[in-house]
Amino acid sequence: MKLLEEKIRKDGIVIGTDILKVDSFLNHKIDVALAQEMGKAFAKKFAGRGINKILTVESSGIGLSCIAAQYFDNAEVVFAKKNKAKTTQNDSVYTADVYSFTRAVTNEIRISKKYLTSEDTVLILDDFMAMGGAANGLISIAEQAGAKVAGIAICIEKGFQGGGDKLRAQGYDLCSLAIIDSMDENEGIVFRENDN
Amino acid sequence: MKLLEEKIRKDGIVIGTDILKVDSFLNHKIDVALAQEMGKAFAKKFAGRGINKILTVESSGIGLSCIAAQYFDNAEVVFAKKNKAKTTQNDSVYTADVYSFTRAVTNEIRISKKYLTSEDTVLILDDFMAMGGAANGLISIAEQAGAKVAGIAICIEKGFQGGGDKLRAQGYDLCSLAIIDSMDENEGIVFRENDN
Repeated sequence: MKLLEEKIRKDGIVIGTDILKVDSFLNHKIDVALAQEMGKAFAKKFAGRGINKILTVESSGIGLSCIAAQYFDNAEVVFAKKNKAKTTQNDSVYTADVYSFTRAVTNEIRISKKYLTSEDTVLILDDFMAMGGAANGLISIAEQAGAKVAGIAICIEKGFQGGGDKLRAQGYDLCSLAIIDSMDENEGIVFRENDN
Repeated sequence: MKLLEEKIRKDGIVIGTDILKVDSFLNHKIDVALAQEMGKAFAKKFAGRGINKILTVESSGIGLSCIAAQYFDNAEVVFAKKNKAKTTQNDSVYTADVYSFTRAVTNEIRISKKYLTSEDTVLILDDFMAMGGAANGLISIAEQAGAKVAGIAICIEKGFQGGGDKLRAQGYDLCSLAIIDSMDENEGIVFRENDN
């Protein structure tokens, strides 16, 4: 998606060769007009798949998922939570462990069994993919629930970290709007050729 | 807002006399069509105030804020973060301490100084208000930045916990779409008369 690649080149900040900060438009301040265009692109890509729920992980995926859901006949959004709340009972949730590359920690994510069932066809959506930890965690939770995974929608894939290509090799329909093959704070970003 | 009050009566779960679970439509699974109606109601209430940013706190406020922003000429959304990420420098952020009634913990919330300035006119938006901790934290951060607080938009106010009325007494323009004056898991919910 040229619009997103241009935004990344203009406003993204590369640190070293593996960290890309996009908090000026994606995961701290959110450019809602850009989110709408990304939501439309995902809806076009995954049209006709019977998607009734978008699954994501708190926090950065939530806004994008809500905006995108509007273009999927108002599919519902279910976001996996990371912290244990005192109102949640543990036997009522599906869980998966997710390693966060950015934060260098493993979190347990969870979705209430009430909100994901074998009758659901889901799109997994997230702002970033590096090693694929969040997407794999959500796939695991969807499998536990017996839900069908119709596809995976990612805004920015760090292609050089391999998580996306592993999922493609497993047969998942993964749509990343921008795929970074390499980056360097001095030499800039190289995007993979990509029709999405 | 009758639509929201009806949804709370239908799908909300009251535990004891002070906990209301609305994770079936607001803060775990999100009813995007309802979020659109709430966003439109806030936009109608706060029209003509020159709002260019919506401020919220992760996680539950993000989706609602992104949906609502669309009805404010695509105002940008800035969400305060709760956890320290290794890519953030502390001298570059405004912070405030917020006590969470639901989780019984105090979190530090923070917004990057880059994304909130004295040129901004903001709407503070959140899903819930109890004691008013999150709203007061965001007001503090807006004051630190010199930004103008045009109003406060809340989906569900627990009126009996007093945070909202304190803010009204201080002169803030607070719009809550549903205000609960009392609730009890046996006797149900009493809503305050409310034109919003």
